[in-house]
Formats: sequence, structure tokens, C-alpha cells
Amino acid sequence: MTKINNLKQAMQKEDKYQSFLVFNSANLTYFSGFQGSMALRIPLEGESTLFVSAVNFEQAKAEVKGLNIQLVKRGENLMETIANQAGALGAKFAVDSLGIESWRALAKAVGGEEKLEVASNLIRELRKVKDQQEIQLIRQACKIADAGMQKAKETIRVGVREKEVAAEAEYAMRKAGSDGVAFDTIVASGFCCAFPHSTFQDRTVKEGDFVMVDLGATHRFYRSDITRTFVAGKGSEKQKRIHEVVKLAQKKAIEHIKPGVAAKEVDMTARRVIEEAGFGDFFVHNLGHGVGLEVHEAPILSTDSKDVLEAGNVVTVEPGIYLPGFGGVRIEDTVLVTEGGAERLTGAFAF
Amino acid sequence: MTKINNLKQAMQKEDKYQSFLVFNSANLTYFSGFQGSMALRIPLEGESTLFVSAVNFEQAKAEVKGLNIQLVKRGENLMETIANQAGALGAKFAVDSLGIESWRALAKAVGGEEKLEVASNLIRELRKVKDQQEIQLIRQACKIADAGMQKAKETIRVGVREKEVAAEAEYAMRKAGSDGVAFDTIVASGFCCAFPHSTFQDRTVKEGDFVMVDLGATHRFYRSDITRTFVAGKGSEKQKRIHEVVKLAQKKAIEHIKPGVAAKEVDMTARRVIEEAGFGDFFVHNLGHGVGLEVHEAPILSTDSKDVLEAGNVVTVEPGIYLPGFGGVRIEDTVLVTEGGAERLTGAFAF
Repeated sequence: MTKINNLKQAMQKEDKYQSFLVFNSANLTYFSGFQGSMALRIPLEGESTLFVSAVNFEQAKAEVKGLNIQLVKRGENLMETIANQAGALGAKFAVDSLGIESWRALAKAVGGEEKLEVASNLIRELRKVKDQQEIQLIRQACKIADAGMQKAKETIRVGVREKEVAAEAEYAMRKAGSDGVAFDTIVASGFCCAFPHSTFQDRTVKEGDFVMVDLGATHRFYRSDITRTFVAGKGSEKQKRIHEVVKLAQKKAIEHIKPGVAAKEVDMTARRVIEEAGFGDFFVHNLGHGVGLEVHEAPILSTDSKDVLEAGNVVTVEPGIYLPGFGGVRIEDTVLVTEGGAERLTGAFAF
Repeated sequence: MTKINNLKQAMQKEDKYQSFLVFNSANLTYFSGFQGSMALRIPLEGESTLFVSAVNFEQAKAEVKGLNIQLVKRGENLMETIANQAGALGAKFAVDSLGIESWRALAKAVGGEEKLEVASNLIRELRKVKDQQEIQLIRQACKIADAGMQKAKETIRVGVREKEVAAEAEYAMRKAGSDGVAFDTIVASGFCCAFPHSTFQDRTVKEGDFVMVDLGATHRFYRSDITRTFVAGKGSEKQKRIHEVVKLAQKKAIEHIKPGVAAKEVDMTARRVIEEAGFGDFFVHNLGHGVGLEVHEAPILSTDSKDVLEAGNVVTVEPGIYLPGFGGVRIEDTVLVTEGGAERLTGAFAF
């Protein structure tokens, strides 16, 4: 219950909320260790209540520790149930996130929108610093992803289809203990490598193609994320040059990581390497993002990020160069911010 | 562009919107055939505009047909860009779905919340009737899921781990051409079968265990969904009885499906079979849901559903009985509503 106590402390500092109402799926898993609840009410003091529908009620009772589990019956109005359970306390409710229609239903149930306040930032700040147990789970997810990438590397050859590479990599991750993919595996070859998020063209790999593989594993709800870009057959000088630039950009960025450094400075470190090599217009995305229960979470490594790195952050470092019509290179690792700097959690082998 | 024209017609009937602003990810894929845009503005008349960030811009230009593609630059306010592009027209904007914070940002950009109206229902109604091309894609996703289930059946034996079954089933789906899983594969054995959505216990299957396998494939963004419950080794009379009841409930429900029938009547048909067998308290979820771009979409087959079935609906029919401490059985197929009744799209083989 450390995570819940941390949130209570953050609420006490704000000194204006009677309860935190959690609705976001990843946030619910974060605080309850359980996937499949509808909401969680964390009062400033006392026991928290997890609201669960009939379909997941027996499993919640068996698996969730330290929370009051309340069944939400068919046809019952969740928002009214939450409001009734909270009682007629005067102070506001903090809310993490809700769609506009659910927000209105909740506002009605608690007696007006002025009783609600979006406070997702409090949870964002907690979640971005991983505890030892979380780091252990992510470390394992990263090892599994490495096994997948190793298999992808072994599978790529001239004449292989993109989907075959994905099939073998995912199977290898499952064999290594993965609970499933962290996100849809990307295998993009040839000109499709110029599309950072290319999907299911299922090209047959040709001599001299770049082949970009972006994959991740899930281990007990925690995720990993790694990208490597290979060449099938013999690479050209231009391909080698681009790959070297991206690799150097990643190296410099990782070397720049330590607690207290602004996340945007890390992004700029990589961006500068790519700009100086003349490819500045072709690095079309942020340098990285946090990884944990979600594959994209805080902190963000971008030119306009307000995050400052702390020990316990887990982030991707993934510079890329994408040349329309030619192809592209991205190299990505999941990295732990440590007291002394950074530790690569993925990337046991190199290209 | 038939799908967009259908929405324009629905808007014309409503006679109060100047544009539909689409933000929901599956809705964006539905209208654009593309995954990875930020928003889509569909005006009552004239060309629609897809808003895309730099990371996916080149791919959108290469792959999207018939839409104006607008780049949203780093640091640019998406909501203001949309409002500017729409111009100072008097009428309201229809919106499909937005989180409360984005909703507020959009309201500010268009000059007040009174200029916005949630109209997700218009798109829900369109999406629930699949056209021939969509049916073809779902049919293929269902064939792939069948291949996965066949492999699961062959893999299940006393002594196998749950994750091995998942690994082999997913690998078989990939080999059969899957673009990925439609959702996290569920393999639950023994007492865990009493939890409809059991996750990663990774039990070793024992003699006489129920083993529930719930999986689906993705084919060009469209999904499938099938569940079978097997027995490892020799089943007991009680297990056989429960399985027969669930199977009969599914059969009766599918026989009841045809255009014009209330979805809740189909749910009640299955529920009645289970109630009459004395297991009414243990069927703890809805009978089914629509399947398409999302694995849960309209129409809903539940006791309180307002949907009326139409030809072109694709729904799951998945009765279940879950006995705490003992285990459970669910049998699920993806079914197409036809002019004449129903066609099973999954389920080429039986238990």
C-alpha cells in the first residue's frame, strides 16, 4: 500500500481534496495490482475502495490485498455508487482522467462540476519514479525483449517476409516468459523504414534493405521497448553512415542522462548530433518516453518537455533518421536513470 | 469515401452541425483507413481533413486516399489548428469522444462549450453495420483465430503450462497471417477458469482441469474473438454437464439471431437456458458484444441493451458458467447477422 500512501501524502500537501477518484486503467493497476476494475476511491484517510463489476468480482476478491472490494451490479450507476460511498463530505474530489460524458455523469452524482478537479499530475509524478519491485519487473520485461530482438536478428535475411520476422520474435519472447506484447510489433523494411510506425505491409525483404524492428514484452503488467535497424545483405556506405550517426546520437544522449538533468537537454543532445551530421529535418519525433505499466508514460524526452530526470525514471532513448523514399534508422533502448547516470535495461547485444 | 458520406448524411438529418470532429482512435481508422492520426474534421460539405503529427506525416501522405492531410507541427495547438481550419461558421461541432482536459481545450478554441456537442452515437450506428469489405476482413481474422484455437487444442495436455499454450496459439495465428493479437490471449486452467478474465497465473495444467482459451487475431485492423473450454485428461460428469449447458445456451442464442430481433432477447435466450439448468447466478457477464476495429464495440448483447440486430452486425455469442473454487466454462464465437439469421465466422471445429 506504499503507492496509495504516497498519493495520500501528495493529497495532504494540496490540502483541498477529500478523495482521489481513479478511473484510468493503468492508474487502477498501479494502485491495486489488478487489471479489470472500474474505479478506485482513495480517501484522504482510511481504507480505499475498488469498484468491480460482476465479471471480475471473484478474481478481485481472490487477488487484491488491502483494499475494500465493492461489487457494482448490473444496471447500477457507478458514479452514484461512488458518490454515495464517499458520503456528504465538503471538500473536492480529485480525478485522474475521464471522458466528457463520464465526467458529466460524475459531476451530476457529486452535486456539480465545481466539486471535481482534474489532478492527474499527482499520479503522473508518482508513477514516473519506479520502486525496486517495478524496476525488477521492467528489467525482466527488457530481458525478454532482448530475446525477441536476438531472434529477429537471426531471422532477417533476403527473401524473408516482414511478418515472419514478427512471428519468430514474438514466439521467442513468449518462450522467454512474456505475458504478451507490450505493443504491436513493428517490422518495416526498405522504403517503409522511412515511416517510424509502419504497419503490416508484409513486404518481402530485398538485398540491401534496411529492416527496422521495434518490439516490447509485458511481464506482470510492466513493459519494455527496444528498436534495432538491420541491413539485409550488404549495406551501402550511406546506410552505414546514417546508422553510425543515429548510434552516436543515442550514445551521447545516454551519457548525458543523470538525476537533475532536464529531459529536454537529453533530447537536444541527441538532436544536435543528428543536426550536425546534416539530418536534422529527418528526426521527426521525440527522443523518448517513460516506460512502465504503459509503453508511453512520463517522463517525456522532447524539446519542450518540462520533466527533470530523477533516479528511478525508466525512459526510452530512441533517435532516428527517416529519409522519404530511401528508408530510415531508429535505435532504441529502455534505460534506467540511476543515482550515478544511466543503465541500459535493453540492448544486451549490438547491431 | 462511402463511410464519410454516410456520416455526412447522418449529420444532414440532424441539421445542426457544421463539422464532425473525430478524435477516437478506432473512429479515425474507420474513416481514414489509417492508424496514427490525431483528428479528422468532416465538414457537412466538401473535403475532410486528417490532422497528423510529423512522426506519421510521410506515411499518411503515402497511404491515405481522398483526404486532405494537414501536418500538425511540434508545439502547435491541435485544437486551435482545427478551429482555424474550420473557419468562423455559426453552427455547432459534433464530437465523438474526448477526455475532459482536451474537451476544455477544444471548447476554448472554438469559442465556448456551447459550440460543441457529443454525437458519438452517429458513428456508433454507422460502425455497427459492416460493409462487404469489412465482413471480408473480419472473416479472415476469424479464420486465423480458428487456426490459433486448433493449435491450442493440440497443445493442451496434463503438465503443460498456461503460457506455453498461449505461445503456441499466438505463433500459429502469426503463421496463418495474423497482424497481431486482437487482445491479450487468456489461457486459464483449473480454479482460474472461474475468473472470466484470468491473467498470467501460468499454472501447470493438472489432470481433470478445465482449460479456457480466449483469443483473437487482427487482420488489417479488424479483429476476431473466440473462446473454447477444454478438459485436460478425463472430464467429470459435472464438467460435462456444465459444458453441455453452455453449449446449448450458445446454440439457442445463435438460432434466435436475425435482423429485427432485440439484442436483449438474444441475451435472455441464452440466460434462460443457464437459469433453467440451475446456474443462473454464475453467468456473470453479458452474452456478447460487437467486433470490428475494436474487440468490444456496438451492438451489445445484454439484458439492458437497446440495440436491435441488423444484417451486417458482427457480434460475439459467449455464454459462460463460472463456479468459484471449481472452475468455469465459456464458449464464444464471432457471428455475422445475415438477412436470413446468423452465420458463425469462428468455430470451424468443435470441442
